Amino acid sequence: MSQPQTPEQVLDTQGDCAPGKRDEDSGEGTQCSHRMLSFSDALLSIIATVMILPVTHTEISPEQHFDKSIQKLLATRIAVYLMTFLIVTVAWAAHTRLFQVVGKIDDTLALLNLACMMTITLLPYTFSLMVTFPDVPLGIFLFCVCVIAIGAVQALIVGYAFHFPHLLSPQIQCSAHRALYRQHVLHIVLRGPVLCFAAAVFSLFFFPLSYLLMATIIFLPYVCKATSWCRDRLIGHQEPPAHPLEFAFDLHKPLSKERVEAFSDGVYAIVATLLILDICEDNVPDPKDVREKFRGSLVAALGVYGPRFLAYFGSFATVGLLWFAHHSLFLHVRRATQAMGLLNTLSLAFVGGLPLAYQQTSAFAQQPHDELERVRVSCAIIFFASIFQLAIWTAALLHEAETLQPSVWFGGQEHAFMFAKLALYPCASLLAFASTCFLSGLSTAIFHLMQITVPSTFLLLRLLVRLGQAGLRGLRNLAGPAHPWPGPTGEADSQSLLLPAPQ
Amino acid sequence: MSQPQTPEQVLDTQGDCAPGKRDEDSGEGTQCSHRMLSFSDALLSIIATVMILPVTHTEISPEQHFDKSIQKLLATRIAVYLMTFLIVTVAWAAHTRLFQVVGKIDDTLALLNLACMMTITLLPYTFSLMVTFPDVPLGIFLFCVCVIAIGAVQALIVGYAFHFPHLLSPQIQCSAHRALYRQHVLHIVLRGPVLCFAAAVFSLFFFPLSYLLMATIIFLPYVCKATSWCRDRLIGHQEPPAHPLEFAFDLHKPLSKERVEAFSDGVYAIVATLLILDICEDNVPDPKDVREKFRGSLVAALGVYGPRFLAYFGSFATVGLLWFAHHSLFLHVRRATQAMGLLNTLSLAFVGGLPLAYQQTSAFAQQPHDELERVRVSCAIIFFASIFQLAIWTAALLHEAETLQPSVWFGGQEHAFMFAKLALYPCASLLAFASTCFLSGLSTAIFHLMQITVPSTFLLLRLLVRLGQAGLRGLRNLAGPAHPWPGPTGEADSQSLLLPAPQ
Repeated sequence: MSQPQTPEQVLDTQGDCAPGKRDEDSGEGTQCSHRMLSFSDALLSIIATVMILPVTHTEISPEQHFDKSIQKLLATRIAVYLMTFLIVTVAWAAHTRLFQVVGKIDDTLALLNLACMMTITLLPYTFSLMVTFPDVPLGIFLFCVCVIAIGAVQALIVGYAFHFPHLLSPQIQCSAHRALYRQHVLHIVLRGPVLCFAAAVFSLFFFPLSYLLMATIIFLPYVCKATSWCRDRLIGHQEPPAHPLEFAFDLHKPLSKERVEAFSDGVYAIVATLLILDICEDNVPDPKDVREKFRGSLVAALGVYGPRFLAYFGSFATVGLLWFAHHSLFLHVRRATQAMGLLNTLSLAFVGGLPLAYQQTSAFAQQPHDELERVRVSCAIIFFASIFQLAIWTAALLHEAETLQPSVWFGGQEHAFMFAKLALYPCASLLAFASTCFLSGLSTAIFHLMQITVPSTFLLLRLLVRLGQAGLRGLRNLAGPAHPWPGPTGEADSQSLLLPAPQ
Repeated sequence: MSQPQTPEQVLDTQGDCAPGKRDEDSGEGTQCSHRMLSFSDALLSIIATVMILPVTHTEISPEQHFDKSIQKLLATRIAVYLMTFLIVTVAWAAHTRLFQVVGKIDDTLALLNLACMMTITLLPYTFSLMVTFPDVPLGIFLFCVCVIAIGAVQALIVGYAFHFPHLLSPQIQCSAHRALYRQHVLHIVLRGPVLCFAAAVFSLFFFPLSYLLMATIIFLPYVCKATSWCRDRLIGHQEPPAHPLEFAFDLHKPLSKERVEAFSDGVYAIVATLLILDICEDNVPDPKDVREKFRGSLVAALGVYGPRFLAYFGSFATVGLLWFAHHSLFLHVRRATQAMGLLNTLSLAFVGGLPLAYQQTSAFAQQPHDELERVRVSCAIIFFASIFQLAIWTAALLHEAETLQPSVWFGGQEHAFMFAKLALYPCASLLAFASTCFLSGLSTAIFHLMQITVPSTFLLLRLLVRLGQAGLRGLRNLAGPAHPWPGPTGEADSQSLLLPAPQ
């Protein structure tokens, strides 16, 4: 990167902690925060995703149809899952911001962070209470108490770090506006808890308002962001104020790319593993059944579960390939803006729903009726998970000079290939969904076909894109043969391959 | 580090992929492997740990005593869990070795790695089959098939990478002995699968031998290591042969410290989260029960679960603080030797058993009888998890010049403090175990007391160590007042605080 480092980039590097190097300038055991942050990311991503379990464990007995009441129950639970996923993500974003300010840690901060994590692990339980007893305000009350406790611990961390300034990130350490910084960080950290305090009070006498407040907490930052973005587009972009404080901590500040990746990896890893958890728990035959029904033949007993394993392979492949697309995308990302962070969160929320898709597909392996709805739910989940990935890229392309590597810019060498990678799943799932409308009898076959063809397409994708590009180039050469084309491997290649030829 | 870089260190840095920098020297989309390795570490650690679930879900009905038959059942399952944990760790170690050779990846390698991960996720299922049907050879047969498939995919990765040498780590890329390297890596990757092939064959007609072979796969590398270590001690250490190949890939080669940390973080994170999974699934009261038994009062219904939440807090604190001790230790570790890796694996295997300790403590909250055995099991799990952490440090101290930062060497500034951190849990759990022998009636109280006092001791530990050191220094000053002591904060302090004064 040849451009001068902005204050944000200085913050993003998390102080001067290179791996393996340890600064021992203070006798009180100051430590690099890198590993603690990875651990926190892993914990938070698991907690956010574990909340899908009450949804997937919604029991549908074989006699019941996939009718309105079940659909309503599922819809409620999914809505609450999505909301809580977003709330944990908000907590994660606040944590990220907090540790962009606190550059180093010591033992006390590490222990305080553990206390914060312990409080966050209680969020899924309050969520379960809310789902099981939607009419009782206790669930939302406990939820608010948790959020307030998290805010209190984070405020303690801020107070402690500003009391021992050698723990702060170097930029703030040297700043003359340290008190202003503290006030600003406290504002970010305590915004949610204060709203939750109001929600907790309301939960005691009029709890629907509490749910409304909870929704406000989740969406307020994004609504602010969206309105300011729209205003910028309409009125014209205003220069960021010269004041360094505003610049470093306004809402446009990019998230740390490493932490976005770590959080996403955690979600993908736990989703892949929730699938095998379900397999291990439900698909081991009962020894008594094997003796009585299958005359002691374990192979015959396992044969019953065959379709489930097929569904498992398909689902693991889906999770794995979505991770692969995400990985390919972020290889080319330089910095993650907040809009990209929001789209990533939405994509991850749907990825977290993939165990539901698995459960749907393994359920229709047993119950032939209603498979149409189930296939459609699965297609929808995969479609939304992948379309938001594509949206991340689109959002990145809007500011490609800051956010992306030159090779994937419009007309870059890898641009078409990246587009193909990200567009494959949305197209495939949309196609599968559409074909179920025409060929409703074959919906299962279509779904399985999609799950088998997509991975093999990924393997052949580079070849296919090359063929497509060659075809396109041939067409263009026919249209305007006088235009000189740069060679396929030279430096000039990064200028344009897909841009319309200049008129 | 002022010493010259050895070839191992060159390999450890995983090629020249700095985060944020992407080398685009080849048109075929070569990528840095860092993120793929983190994701693999997360998946593998979760898969290794998820296998504790069949153990914790061993149902003990309230009428049953914690008697011999239950103990035997539990012991069998725990043994199989430990064995499988170790096998996944062996697969992880092979994966680490493999990607120390393959420095960069491209899309094909990323997809092959995903296929490898998918096969590994099936291991827990074969484990469940083995536990449920110990007398049927199908479980071990499927297990062997999985291991062979993993070996085949890894051999494919090796073949692919050596076919496109720009994917190899720079050192091997330039080496004249590339074919020898390939042979050596293939040997490491295929050693386990070949033994498993034999085990699969035997499983068809004499399956106890298969279990024996499985045990060989796990322990062979360690037995080799231990014997060579003993031989070195007895005969004297032989210089490593001058041949660079032998040097880079013999069994003494240190593991990548980052990957050991990432794998350990994954285990700690998932163990902490398995605890909340149990809470969310089992401790949400049934709406019908609340209506009938508690006259609609959710608060009263939740009161029943109070002791479980206490146990949960205690267990989360234990996992968190063990992570904290591990984190503190590895902050001071420069390089992880294979002995340290083995001890770390053993420690993690017991950490994975902590959900069992939690289940034990929450179970005795409901059933007052047999609490003595349960408390003892919990104490034993915590003791072994923490004593192996202490052993990692002891093993590191044997080669402190290579493995540790100077500040924690014998007599270093932080030496006593680090010892106190690592010795706290072994001492506390041993003390709790011992006191249950004398005060068997109070075992629960003792256990809860331990879970409350240890975290607070961690907070005060630095103070306590300072006090202890001051006391020791005072005693020494009394004994030999002529000896000049360095000041408590100077550079000379890193020389000695706890070493016996030179005579």
